[in-house]
Amino acid sequence: MRQNAMDRLMELCQEKNSRIVAGLDPTWESIPEEFKVRNGWGQEEDDDFLYVRIFQRYCEAYIDAVASVVPAIKINSAFFEKEGLDDLYWMIAVKAKDAGLFVIGDLKRADIGSTSAAYAEAYLSEDAPFDAITINPYFGTDGVKPFLELAKENGKGVFILVKTSNKSADEIQDLRLEDGRLVYEAVADLVIQWQNQFDDTDGEYSMIGAVVGATHKEQAEALRKQMPNTAFLVPGYGAQGATAEDVAVNFNEKGLGAIVNSSRGIMNAYKKECWKEEFSEEDWDEAATAEATRATEEINRALEK
Amino acid sequence: MRQNAMDRLMELCQEKNSRIVAGLDPTWESIPEEFKVRNGWGQEEDDDFLYVRIFQRYCEAYIDAVASVVPAIKINSAFFEKEGLDDLYWMIAVKAKDAGLFVIGDLKRADIGSTSAAYAEAYLSEDAPFDAITINPYFGTDGVKPFLELAKENGKGVFILVKTSNKSADEIQDLRLEDGRLVYEAVADLVIQWQNQFDDTDGEYSMIGAVVGATHKEQAEALRKQMPNTAFLVPGYGAQGATAEDVAVNFNEKGLGAIVNSSRGIMNAYKKECWKEEFSEEDWDEAATAEATRATEEINRALEK
Repeated sequence: MRQNAMDRLMELCQEKNSRIVAGLDPTWESIPEEFKVRNGWGQEEDDDFLYVRIFQRYCEAYIDAVASVVPAIKINSAFFEKEGLDDLYWMIAVKAKDAGLFVIGDLKRADIGSTSAAYAEAYLSEDAPFDAITINPYFGTDGVKPFLELAKENGKGVFILVKTSNKSADEIQDLRLEDGRLVYEAVADLVIQWQNQFDDTDGEYSMIGAVVGATHKEQAEALRKQMPNTAFLVPGYGAQGATAEDVAVNFNEKGLGAIVNSSRGIMNAYKKECWKEEFSEEDWDEAATAEATRATEEINRALEK
Repeated sequence: MRQNAMDRLMELCQEKNSRIVAGLDPTWESIPEEFKVRNGWGQEEDDDFLYVRIFQRYCEAYIDAVASVVPAIKINSAFFEKEGLDDLYWMIAVKAKDAGLFVIGDLKRADIGSTSAAYAEAYLSEDAPFDAITINPYFGTDGVKPFLELAKENGKGVFILVKTSNKSADEIQDLRLEDGRLVYEAVADLVIQWQNQFDDTDGEYSMIGAVVGATHKEQAEALRKQMPNTAFLVPGYGAQGATAEDVAVNFNEKGLGAIVNSSRGIMNAYKKECWKEEFSEEDWDEAATAEATRATEEINRALEK
């Protein structure tokens, strides 16, 4: 058994004094035009090979831009699957790992046990570049068990969707049960049960974390109390509307126990009102570094209060 | 707007007089040894290229074995992701489509809207070989909407997880709400709401279907009444324990409206007690054809009762 993945993540947060996870959700449209042109796009007949190379170089430049500031990166597989670039997904995760980042594979996979076992082997095997992945709890214990067992064996972690950050999250997750709990609270109870059942790692945090959207402040506050030893992956800050103050409730009294995701906020920083004057499109990567630093400091300040 | 995908599926069921969807969940271990050897494995130093070729040939032979009998195939991405063979996943889906099968991408994807849109473009774009895919409802409306909209645009379908076939499905899906419904019943209500909201296709069946596990007979019976115009994708028959009689309740009075999945039952037919004498390992594909035919007839007989 290796060091608990979430303890490793929290150590990295302390070392870098940052609680930001930089999200990488690349689309062809999100890559600055100037970057494409600088890398040869449009100079001759555009070809598939160059398209992929530019996609790759963009992801690599993003990693270089954030790696010195943040402890972790969250790479969403959807944007690579959309382009048919699953191999690149893996390569970029390796690059992020080599850059010293805690690498979260944002996959949200789930199925029956035998199929979850195949997904687990795909992304949580010993040689996979992911330190943790996100999974969906809808199948219950036997659907998550293969992920938890392989994560434990290989010193990795999982973040289980508890309360998501999107607007319609409440439609299923906030249904009121006859015992008074909401569905996502029952899911949180299951996560705690799974921590007790499957996690005998010797860490301050469980290797089994939770996704808790920043857009629901009071609910996050209650979940923090309900799950004191659980690392939270917190989406919803920035582009989705949550402020640093909203996000602060996800942390424990040590100012740890959570990482706050910023994807579009960092990727598109050069377009932001506050950076537009300082950075041109050409300097999108420097703007990303600046925004990752600004977000880091904003969260740290909110925690000092 | 094209012909409604689920109507197309039901027509195929009638043409072939089969309500079986052959599941393809390939693992290296599930490929018969004799097939590997016949394709050159073990003759010289085993290499990665040959490994992939055998994997591919096995999937192609499986399609050839079932295409004349069943209307549809369900290809689970997990087993291709496990092998790092995402390109092959696509190729095999194309091959199945060319063989005249209704191709279901068993992906169970879900995320916030902007990310679901990327998944939708990956698998429901016009040129994608999938007629339908499976998705997970946990994010609510904005997480499923991009799938539904693109499916409508391109004449495709989705199957939304309502009640899964695995043992621990009840842990979340059968929680009792204060209004008396169970969680999966509330999800079924959402599916009906989404049908009304997003599906204006002019079909007997909605393009928005549901996954309803065969292992919960009474619940399936109730869901059939609750969702009369909904195509059910029914896992759990055979290897997971449900009988043809259990499965029959998923069909409407016309004996349509559902397709029953058999994956391991067909793939591993040559190992089954009832086929062992007739087929050797060498004839695994003929055993698959025989089992697909047997399952087809067993379901048809159960529906006649």
